[in-house]
Amino acid sequence: NTYRIAVIPGDGIGPEVVAEGLRVLRAVGGADAGFSLELEELPWGSAYYDRHGRMMPEDAIPTLRAFDSIYFGAVGRPDLPDDLTVWGLILPMRRELDLYVNLRPVRLYPGVPTPLRPEVGEPHFTFVRENTEGEYAGLGGRQGQGEHELAVQTGVFTRRGIQRVVEYAFSLAAPGSLVTSVTKSNALRHAFTLWDEVAAEVAARHPDMRFEKMHVDAVAYQLVRNPARFGVLVGSNLFGDILTDLGAGLQGSLGLAASANLCPGQRLALFEPVHGSAPDIAGQGKANPLGAVACAALMLAHLGERQAAGRIERAMEHVTRQQVFTPDLGGSCSTREVGDALLAALGSE
Amino acid sequence: NTYRIAVIPGDGIGPEVVAEGLRVLRAVGGADAGFSLELEELPWGSAYYDRHGRMMPEDAIPTLRAFDSIYFGAVGRPDLPDDLTVWGLILPMRRELDLYVNLRPVRLYPGVPTPLRPEVGEPHFTFVRENTEGEYAGLGGRQGQGEHELAVQTGVFTRRGIQRVVEYAFSLAAPGSLVTSVTKSNALRHAFTLWDEVAAEVAARHPDMRFEKMHVDAVAYQLVRNPARFGVLVGSNLFGDILTDLGAGLQGSLGLAASANLCPGQRLALFEPVHGSAPDIAGQGKANPLGAVACAALMLAHLGERQAAGRIERAMEHVTRQQVFTPDLGGSCSTREVGDALLAALGSE
Ligand SMILES: CC(C)[C@H](C(=O)O)[C@@H](O)C(=O)O
Ligand SMILES: CC(C)[C@H](C(=O)O)[C@@H](O)C(=O)O
Repeated sequence: NTYRIAVIPGDGIGPEVVAEGLRVLRAVGGADAGFSLELEELPWGSAYYDRHGRMMPEDAIPTLRAFDSIYFGAVGRPDLPDDLTVWGLILPMRRELDLYVNLRPVRLYPGVPTPLRPEVGEPHFTFVRENTEGEYAGLGGRQGQGEHELAVQTGVFTRRGIQRVVEYAFSLAAPGSLVTSVTKSNALRHAFTLWDEVAAEVAARHPDMRFEKMHVDAVAYQLVRNPARFGVLVGSNLFGDILTDLGAGLQGSLGLAASANLCPGQRLALFEPVHGSAPDIAGQGKANPLGAVACAALMLAHLGERQAAGRIERAMEHVTRQQVFTPDLGGSCSTREVGDALLAALGSE
Repeated sequence: NTYRIAVIPGDGIGPEVVAEGLRVLRAVGGADAGFSLELEELPWGSAYYDRHGRMMPEDAIPTLRAFDSIYFGAVGRPDLPDDLTVWGLILPMRRELDLYVNLRPVRLYPGVPTPLRPEVGEPHFTFVRENTEGEYAGLGGRQGQGEHELAVQTGVFTRRGIQRVVEYAFSLAAPGSLVTSVTKSNALRHAFTLWDEVAAEVAARHPDMRFEKMHVDAVAYQLVRNPARFGVLVGSNLFGDILTDLGAGLQGSLGLAASANLCPGQRLALFEPVHGSAPDIAGQGKANPLGAVACAALMLAHLGERQAAGRIERAMEHVTRQQVFTPDLGGSCSTREVGDALLAALGSE
């Protein structure tokens, strides 16, 4: 098996963490592993914008369709408006490739200092974020001059869009485990009464799972009060965005958090760390590569290479247990040193 | 000075916590204090709906305008759709009385167990939530049948609405302190590029304060990573809703959290605990009255009775230091017993 991977390091710390992810990928692939990777780097992002006036080429989406997977770094540079950069790169990839699930596992790694007191309980859940519509529809505009100016922002939620993402959430849950649908149907009632109805219909088809709906404010509250109560959460694009950053905080660092953007049943998917381009630390060798490395594991698992994915996960646990930490985790190791430690752990298995 | 207070206990635990708040208010008012309170109870809410088919009378808003203040409990009953109950009571009061600021102080009370490890730092900030427009505009609808159904939800953000709430946030900040404007202008760019621009203009008029803008996901993250970095936060209706419940979690319980709904420069304001009607514990004497009691203090401070407000705050601190706790805080005291302890603390000052 040879997998063709599009590698888009992107902006800021993206290239730094992607470099370590690629070292790890190369280390677990190869003849012994029974698969190999063909890595093709696509130099898209803000530097591409400087030269071409757009974040990626016009034929970017068809180009990407020829790959088995996409390994992405980060997007955003302080001298460019961030709505321009995200709407020029990551958001169109999610939408046009119909990667309607943004999957964000939250769990603790051994040895990592976390902000919650132990008696509060451990976060260990999977967030399924809708990834192509909802609040991120991009619709709206501004009108009027001076003091009369106003802006309108419109979210669009389709029954089909809700149904498929909630179905996917149920497909992840083990029998008896809890699926929580996150809405705000009391206040934002047009969108979220529809969501609530569709989620309840899907839940009725899965009587072997426990199901609840909860308002987004209550979920934010419960995540710091009793995180262990959650199993699988499913929510809209915006709520998923907010709550998974909170989840990364509970994990101890955004630098650890990984996500898969996928279309269930389809091979092509996009893997990206949850952190951004972090311009404040870019180029200093301080970025935590573990989020990108966890993405490499998610990618291999999605490609069916579960054994190699497991090797990466174990190497990560070894490295965090040894507290080989970048500054975000309170350590003083460099990005590269964490990569070295991962390779050593993989080599000595 | 005699203040006329409209008391709306509302649903669920609302009446239980309001009863304790009123005992405290009666204890600090009176001839010695230099002011008195005329309390008029308005039996609005779900029980009113059962009899009249609406949550409050048609002339509710003009009725309320005749008062100096509104002391509110909670709204919502499981047998009624919660979009119906909130759009029938609390949301129209906020909107039609133009109470455009929802002020939510977050700080720790002595003796209260909190979820964050001490080394993470203490949350001590004030959240200024826009309270009359934005995502809560209520606009949108549903269209289509069966699998083709969709819902549209539209937020409306006016320059005037943003400007006045951000101005208010700056008015609360001490010189040199930090004001954080919370948006999501990279993804929801129509609404929040306007917000960012207006906030930057207001900030430019306050060169003595430090100002930053931060995306809502990053704020959720920082609240559990480094809560002490924040001073005053200002954000939209929805973001304020989510982040202040998170803030209540960091305080140790929603049962402690208080809010003021106000229109700066105007006496008439509405005070409500951040918790909801909590039907699961209603009628059992388990509800924490401290949120409602903190609201009583906020109300008196707003009416200019700072000394009496300070007495309530000190009594609360005394009671939490003694760990006279309802179950939400890990104790076994009843709502009434906490009220008794507050009255004892006030009496022995
Ligand atoms: C960069 C930004 C548009 C993006 C999002 O909001 O989806 C990011 O925060 C994320 O969570 O992947
Ligand atoms: C009851 C609900 C509509 C309300 C809100 O979302 O504003 C509540 O959560 C709050 O925070 O006061």
